[in-house]
Amino acid sequence: MSFISRRLASTSTFTMKPTPSKAHHHTPLPSSSFPTGFVLGGIHAGVKKKAGVPDLAVILSTSEKPTSAAACFTRNAFKAAPVLVSNQIIAKNGGYARAVVVNSGCANAVTGKQGMDDAWAMVKATDALLPSKSKKFDNETLVMSTGVIGQNLPISKIITGIESQALEKKDTSVLGSDFKAWESAAKAFMTTDTFPKLRSRTFTIGDQEYRMAGMDKGAGMIHPDMGPASTSFSSAPKQLHATLLGCIMTDAAVSPRSLQSALTYAVDRSFNSISVDGDMSTNDSIYVLANGAASKDGLVIDEESNKDAYEVFKKELTDFAADLAKLVVRDGEGATKFVTVTVKNAPSYKDAHSIASRISTSALVKTALYGEDANWGRILAATGSVPLLPSAATGVAPVIDPAKVNVTFVPSDGTSPLPVLVHGEPEKVDEVRAKEILQLEDFEVLVDMGMEGEGEAQYWTCDFSYEYVSINGDYRS
Amino acid sequence: MSFISRRLASTSTFTMKPTPSKAHHHTPLPSSSFPTGFVLGGIHAGVKKKAGVPDLAVILSTSEKPTSAAACFTRNAFKAAPVLVSNQIIAKNGGYARAVVVNSGCANAVTGKQGMDDAWAMVKATDALLPSKSKKFDNETLVMSTGVIGQNLPISKIITGIESQALEKKDTSVLGSDFKAWESAAKAFMTTDTFPKLRSRTFTIGDQEYRMAGMDKGAGMIHPDMGPASTSFSSAPKQLHATLLGCIMTDAAVSPRSLQSALTYAVDRSFNSISVDGDMSTNDSIYVLANGAASKDGLVIDEESNKDAYEVFKKELTDFAADLAKLVVRDGEGATKFVTVTVKNAPSYKDAHSIASRISTSALVKTALYGEDANWGRILAATGSVPLLPSAATGVAPVIDPAKVNVTFVPSDGTSPLPVLVHGEPEKVDEVRAKEILQLEDFEVLVDMGMEGEGEAQYWTCDFSYEYVSINGDYRS
Repeated sequence: MSFISRRLASTSTFTMKPTPSKAHHHTPLPSSSFPTGFVLGGIHAGVKKKAGVPDLAVILSTSEKPTSAAACFTRNAFKAAPVLVSNQIIAKNGGYARAVVVNSGCANAVTGKQGMDDAWAMVKATDALLPSKSKKFDNETLVMSTGVIGQNLPISKIITGIESQALEKKDTSVLGSDFKAWESAAKAFMTTDTFPKLRSRTFTIGDQEYRMAGMDKGAGMIHPDMGPASTSFSSAPKQLHATLLGCIMTDAAVSPRSLQSALTYAVDRSFNSISVDGDMSTNDSIYVLANGAASKDGLVIDEESNKDAYEVFKKELTDFAADLAKLVVRDGEGATKFVTVTVKNAPSYKDAHSIASRISTSALVKTALYGEDANWGRILAATGSVPLLPSAATGVAPVIDPAKVNVTFVPSDGTSPLPVLVHGEPEKVDEVRAKEILQLEDFEVLVDMGMEGEGEAQYWTCDFSYEYVSINGDYRS
Repeated sequence: MSFISRRLASTSTFTMKPTPSKAHHHTPLPSSSFPTGFVLGGIHAGVKKKAGVPDLAVILSTSEKPTSAAACFTRNAFKAAPVLVSNQIIAKNGGYARAVVVNSGCANAVTGKQGMDDAWAMVKATDALLPSKSKKFDNETLVMSTGVIGQNLPISKIITGIESQALEKKDTSVLGSDFKAWESAAKAFMTTDTFPKLRSRTFTIGDQEYRMAGMDKGAGMIHPDMGPASTSFSSAPKQLHATLLGCIMTDAAVSPRSLQSALTYAVDRSFNSISVDGDMSTNDSIYVLANGAASKDGLVIDEESNKDAYEVFKKELTDFAADLAKLVVRDGEGATKFVTVTVKNAPSYKDAHSIASRISTSALVKTALYGEDANWGRILAATGSVPLLPSAATGVAPVIDPAKVNVTFVPSDGTSPLPVLVHGEPEKVDEVRAKEILQLEDFEVLVDMGMEGEGEAQYWTCDFSYEYVSINGDYRS
């Protein structure tokens, strides 16, 4: 009896491709590009074992104007304590908060009553750092944690760390507003990230210039699905969860309602459109603070009272969120490729988004990307496995016509795209050319469904490598 | 500026654990356990390059009684030609067919009109092998293909192969009814499988003994979601698709309608409850033929006219299908573990099935299984990421109460289970004991949701290893 001998082999070794350095994705930014009216910084409080590694960030709005706050949280049923506490604060305050406190190294998830107490303790200690003359609410701090699940925070170390950041404690406080301050805060977000993720931009509404800056972190358990905070003006108490944390600050003035609606829109098209491994976390949170410090003309951006300004702001926020989200994919655990998956001419945006998501999470597609193999068959199988939504008009789901589907690989270097499936027929693929494209660090997979409706969506994903298995096969030890 | 140096490392090597031999899962079966009235066999027709490797199986019912046939097909939108053709034949014949022809090495998927012509040619060539005196329909053969997508079949080699199996061609035909014949057919199903998957059983209804036997194949692109064939008596033309192929033969007599309903039930609880990599194929098909050759008392099993007999048959078919399905997981690409995921006390069977499916496909859970790490946090995060179905009574989805959830690792060797999460609180886990369980080849992950409804479902999955990446990172070359 002859069996294929593959599985009978004893210990083998696999050689990993050299993974490219990602260091160039973090570079100094001009201090003039950071929003005014914020001070922040990151320190080593002792959550992480290794001395000197930042694990606690404090972000304070020093603006005397009201600081609006909005959030999107994981939809996971097992929401971590910081998610629950932050949602309560935003809801109670009607969309206002002036501070954010973040720790890495421990997620404070599945930690029961102690976890809730610890999250509240972080909030209260940070509240005490805020200028008291602008105090309007009992609690004005949002909290985030990331790291191992099921362990309690070393809370006394964290509280000591927060207290050391009081602005008057000039010997211990690192809070500032220059690049170094922003960078140290971004570093305190990191877990298995290999570089801090910090971006800034300026934008103009009317004659007024504003700034937006922020940081995020990711690496693993990255497949966010986040919904808006449950404030009085959001219809349902939806929440999201993942080990994706992000925080965006702007010196524009935005009404709480419009800040939340702009963030919800932006998150769907950025953080909810990325995948590293298809796993949704219990801690995923994106916060945005708008402190109005640059709003000299008194403009408060609002969807109803000044729609044009709102649309500009929403677009800036969406583009900025996408920039931050892409950094997470680029630095995904074990990632050697950054791949944009575009689906167009689907019946709706939601259908296009579902198909792009399925392609982006397929283990077979992702191992083929790692293997630099133009395996369009796997892309097509993933595409076809998504049930399309029933049409609102007929109640019947539209049917994909295989004879109208096109799949194209688009290189990032400006050279010609390579069609691999045209109108449902496989092309005679030039394998040398395919290899040239797939050896790039960045490229795009374009799937044209050829259907009515013009639904289009983009997703950003990475490949599945030996290193991913290595990182996650032995994470706790 | 200091970056974590992990990603900056140049070429590294990873050492794979020795993967256990699976050869013992294929052993000789007594000829008396095979259903009467079938002849079958597998040969090398030339689809696969390597000489002598079986790639074509022919299965004929020689019973003079009507042979009922039922099928479940992939729900993928890009159904391969053999899926489309077989569904047409079953629908046209009202649930009757007397033969199955199978090739491995080429999936005949995304092959346009030529692919349809080729599938029909396989059907017609196999029809010609059937005893003509029982002929009642134009076409009585179902067809299956598995292998690479987007390539045309070497159809003349296949037709020559089929024709060589005419029963009167005693020098070339290998068709028979003993173990060797069944084994050679099972081998012709294989692609990256490491052992042929063949099982048989006997069962009794009243005084009558019947037999059931069958084979399947899997390895990769295994996450089936199959629906019933679209016959006149099935409500909707649902179809499924994957590189899972299975064929079950019985010498009981079963009405076509009841054979389909029993198969649909069985497939949901067997083949639709396994995952190797979460990827659904374009070719997934399960066929069952019931030729009545052992039905001496004239009983035709039917859900309406003899419900007790039907229930016995349905249970036998479900258990048998689960046995075949589990073999596919055990032989999954790169698999070193066979893990049963049981979810109980969910609001419904569907909720339990969705949660078990999500746990079973989580890359983080599967890499932890490979790493023999009792990482219940990842299990919980996967559990919590599943949206529960709205209650029929209230229209509102029930909410998981984290304080009622239990997670337990159950060893397969009869020793004590190890609770890791009890009523939402992490246990102080004995890591030595956890390692003992996780080092077993077989164990169970039991998630008790603690909710009303008593929904319970099982899923079978394997781990994610370096070898999976190796196999799929370089599949086509």
